[in-house]
Amino acid sequence: MVLRLSNLFLRTLREDPTDAEVASHRLLLRAGYIRRAAPGIYTWLPLGLRVLRKVETIVREEMDAIGAQEVHFPALLPKEPYDASGRWTEYGDGIFRLQDRKGADYLLAPTHEEVFTLLVKDMYSSYKDLPLNLYQIQNKYRDEERPRAGLLRGREFIMKDAYSFDIDDAGQAVSYNAYRGAYLRIFERLGLEVVPVSATAGAMGGSRSEEFLHPSPIGEDTYVRSAGGYAANVEAVTTVVPADVDYTTAPAARVLDTPDTPTIASLVAAANQLAPLAEGEWKAEHTLKNVVLAVTLPTGERELVVVGLPGNRAVDTKRIEANISPFLTVGGEVSVEAASEADLAKNPLLVKGYIGPGLTVDQAVLGAEGTSKLLYLVDPRVVSGTTWITGANESGKHVFGLVAGRDFGWDGVIESSEVLEGDEAPDGSGPLETARGIEMGHIFALGRKYAEALDLKVLDSHGKLTVVTMGSYGIGVTRAIAALAESNHDDKGLMWPRAVAPADVHVVAVGRGEEIFAAAQQLSADLEAAGLDVIYDDRPKVSPGVKFGDAELLGVPTILAVGRGLVDGVVEIKDRATGEATNVAVDDAVQFVVAAAKA
Amino acid sequence: MVLRLSNLFLRTLREDPTDAEVASHRLLLRAGYIRRAAPGIYTWLPLGLRVLRKVETIVREEMDAIGAQEVHFPALLPKEPYDASGRWTEYGDGIFRLQDRKGADYLLAPTHEEVFTLLVKDMYSSYKDLPLNLYQIQNKYRDEERPRAGLLRGREFIMKDAYSFDIDDAGQAVSYNAYRGAYLRIFERLGLEVVPVSATAGAMGGSRSEEFLHPSPIGEDTYVRSAGGYAANVEAVTTVVPADVDYTTAPAARVLDTPDTPTIASLVAAANQLAPLAEGEWKAEHTLKNVVLAVTLPTGERELVVVGLPGNRAVDTKRIEANISPFLTVGGEVSVEAASEADLAKNPLLVKGYIGPGLTVDQAVLGAEGTSKLLYLVDPRVVSGTTWITGANESGKHVFGLVAGRDFGWDGVIESSEVLEGDEAPDGSGPLETARGIEMGHIFALGRKYAEALDLKVLDSHGKLTVVTMGSYGIGVTRAIAALAESNHDDKGLMWPRAVAPADVHVVAVGRGEEIFAAAQQLSADLEAAGLDVIYDDRPKVSPGVKFGDAELLGVPTILAVGRGLVDGVVEIKDRATGEATNVAVDDAVQFVVAAAKA
Repeated sequence: MVLRLSNLFLRTLREDPTDAEVASHRLLLRAGYIRRAAPGIYTWLPLGLRVLRKVETIVREEMDAIGAQEVHFPALLPKEPYDASGRWTEYGDGIFRLQDRKGADYLLAPTHEEVFTLLVKDMYSSYKDLPLNLYQIQNKYRDEERPRAGLLRGREFIMKDAYSFDIDDAGQAVSYNAYRGAYLRIFERLGLEVVPVSATAGAMGGSRSEEFLHPSPIGEDTYVRSAGGYAANVEAVTTVVPADVDYTTAPAARVLDTPDTPTIASLVAAANQLAPLAEGEWKAEHTLKNVVLAVTLPTGERELVVVGLPGNRAVDTKRIEANISPFLTVGGEVSVEAASEADLAKNPLLVKGYIGPGLTVDQAVLGAEGTSKLLYLVDPRVVSGTTWITGANESGKHVFGLVAGRDFGWDGVIESSEVLEGDEAPDGSGPLETARGIEMGHIFALGRKYAEALDLKVLDSHGKLTVVTMGSYGIGVTRAIAALAESNHDDKGLMWPRAVAPADVHVVAVGRGEEIFAAAQQLSADLEAAGLDVIYDDRPKVSPGVKFGDAELLGVPTILAVGRGLVDGVVEIKDRATGEATNVAVDDAVQFVVAAAKA
Repeated sequence: MVLRLSNLFLRTLREDPTDAEVASHRLLLRAGYIRRAAPGIYTWLPLGLRVLRKVETIVREEMDAIGAQEVHFPALLPKEPYDASGRWTEYGDGIFRLQDRKGADYLLAPTHEEVFTLLVKDMYSSYKDLPLNLYQIQNKYRDEERPRAGLLRGREFIMKDAYSFDIDDAGQAVSYNAYRGAYLRIFERLGLEVVPVSATAGAMGGSRSEEFLHPSPIGEDTYVRSAGGYAANVEAVTTVVPADVDYTTAPAARVLDTPDTPTIASLVAAANQLAPLAEGEWKAEHTLKNVVLAVTLPTGERELVVVGLPGNRAVDTKRIEANISPFLTVGGEVSVEAASEADLAKNPLLVKGYIGPGLTVDQAVLGAEGTSKLLYLVDPRVVSGTTWITGANESGKHVFGLVAGRDFGWDGVIESSEVLEGDEAPDGSGPLETARGIEMGHIFALGRKYAEALDLKVLDSHGKLTVVTMGSYGIGVTRAIAALAESNHDDKGLMWPRAVAPADVHVVAVGRGEEIFAAAQQLSADLEAAGLDVIYDDRPKVSPGVKFGDAELLGVPTILAVGRGLVDGVVEIKDRATGEATNVAVDDAVQFVVAAAKA
């Protein structure tokens, strides 16, 4: 195929669009791959559509290779199945909802677990039909609060979503691993570095879950890895839990006057003055900080909870959001923030700066059984027998030597504190370092949540009705294009990996001579005949500078320039990514480019 | 490719689904090509998706062949462009509307004229950039009042929509004809008979317009054709207008008592008694029937109009709907129905059964200038000098010899009456016959409506800003599949044309012997190696009857049965459409099937 720039529907932009913050967004707009239709909603122009189709094809081939079968669901779906799973409510403002002319409720689906479950229920009834793997490549919708960075976080976007159906957990594990392998092959073929990291299942539910993160400074996901190979989304990191401490000989706790110590730093300073240690000194990690948080449920309700954690650690609300659902009455995505003055004012038992669990178990203030009735969750480091300096629930007073499990209890343990560089990996593989990544894919061992909610059962080999176990597996197809652009560009433009480039070679006719255009056209035709896709810049009155600029902006891997060298029988062939340019005899040019394309 | 029925995601149904009225709907469901997700909204199962991709590919190739470039717009679009064109209002209840979390209005686009116009405006600025042809194959949405007949009238469906942009009308005509040709080739390749018929532009606006109708008794469109080659949608048929009549010697009109003659039949009988003609007798066609109609505008407002037409013709509200917009103040789709008793009660000048234009021009009752102030439109047969018996606006009285143009006038002429078999074609090509068809495609010479509304101008060759002229061209991709199924089936199942069949050959292993399955599997592999797509029924414990039934239901063009004949070295190869079965030597089978597939 030869695309001629004289009539290709394309206008490159010299200036950066003002609303584009990240390189991929800027360059995809400037190079005429996409155009904005509304916030977070894009139109695909001819070159962009070519890249999109190539990415889709790679994804499709690898799905087919593991025996997944392609289907295609509607994007517009009725409310009922999402009601049955609870997600109609759980998604809160995050999805587009609408009504038809008869007033029936619909949504634009963000993901399709429910309807795949119903489809299989509708068609299959026996363990002999399983395992079953289905997928689709399809428009998805999310009403993002802040659509950003072009295709990286859009409101209409393309995903490949796949679903596995197995009769038992062992089968599910096999399916899960098949997708995991396919995903690694897909990203490898796309030329996109990814790190698979352990993740929390979030609103999706289920047990095992991994994200495939593309390391990038503009990524929204923070993850950690150790030199020994551990990798996890920060939300999913588990703390190395210390052993319980024997507290049989621990002295009784005592309340001391600690005026003007509402912060951890001021408290530590006061402690070292009031009750200096025999050896060493008090540090922030010896204090138990109790932070009041407001949790907004998908229903819009606001609940207060208190989290207790060592004073040297900050609260990480994202980690709490990812892990708090077992302690709430409503499922779904929640948002967590610091409680407001107004929240605190409603709970007079909470004395700001001096909040503590209470002086004895019988006098508990925090906790569902305490006088405050507020749920009290503690960091995993707060194990039985650990001893703390913490608030005494009176202004200017703290209690010293309060023993966990002896003097106070809690409603649950939650991963609540910031993960710090240097923390130990939970698998003992060494200290953690943090990095940022873009979520390219996410796989979930869903278990039986959806099958139970929607009653997907089949007969097992003993003739007994058995709930099916499922997995769901997503790849952001349009987001992959943004990530590829993000990691494959320079200040002049895009530099597509071959597998997804809109063409194999970009032929530029430089100069005015008719013989130059004749030669360039012949080379384009010969390259096409050799099976390559060609962009041919045949624009007659455009300067060499503009043509080369456009070639570098568009980012096709090989640029072939036909110009002044033609009188000496040579053309210039340049590798867009390395910048390496070679003069090649006209007669050898096609072979040279073909070799580069197949390399 | 070999699809094995032992693991293909497929369940055929023995019984007809109760809610499926037409054959295509029933069979596409029963054969496991589609599944209903909501009213008018379907899921594509693996076999259906294969057919869909084949249809899309044919459409895409023919669009590419005329130089149209593929792009892809969002389905979710902001209100503003549709407000600028007026269609946000004009579509009334017919589209899905929604708001995002910030309260901004969006729609699920039913067609994309506005945003294509804006895209071209955004990117192009000179006549040198034109002509430009763009298309997409994409999900479309309509909130149909009565989604019906499966894919024939859905609420989420796939269309190919294309748009042409030209600097002048001559260029537009060239573009229009290019699409017209491409459409005929597409339907030819699909194996789908179509009749191109003249159509009205409806809410789309513009001048020339043709529909491509697939003749079918279940079609919703009535069209007419003459032996001489005329073909038009009934809405678009124009009446052969009689010449004006010289009325200088016509006698004065006179009012006669015609008690109890509220119907045309009773009036004609009374006329023949009261004032018999010297020669022949009064007939219904001599009376002028004045029908009060209620027009519901897209805004929901209800306006009354009166239509005058010869008494032997019935009002065709669809024809009026298609042609009334020039007489209304608001554009867009309207609905027309008979006025209710309540409507009439509000207009005491209208005496039911005895309504007439008034006895003289100065005493006009009907018409914007008449005492009723009601718009008065007449059938094209009511030309100047024609003489009528019509209501005298008093109960029990009619006026005889009322002369059009002398005694009464009108606000406009409208195609309002039913087209009857035997009416003359407007181009003189003979009498019309009526038929029903399914609308498969529609092409519109839009003119400058959208370019003007959205200010799409380019510099012409004199450096002057010129409004671009456009065309829009649609094909119902999913509907084409329904039409193909509708016209290619028998009582046993589907009979796909080769170009769109989900596979080339359906291999059936009949019986239990291992050697039968071994041979069937080998033949499937050999057929695949020969470049054919194969469905292989390898189910071990399914009876021959069920297997043959499924093969006929699925409708692949060639069925190859490996069974008892194998001991004699033969297999049976059957043509699904003709039913012709041939015993072929095993060694010749692949060649035989390949020959059939390429025929």
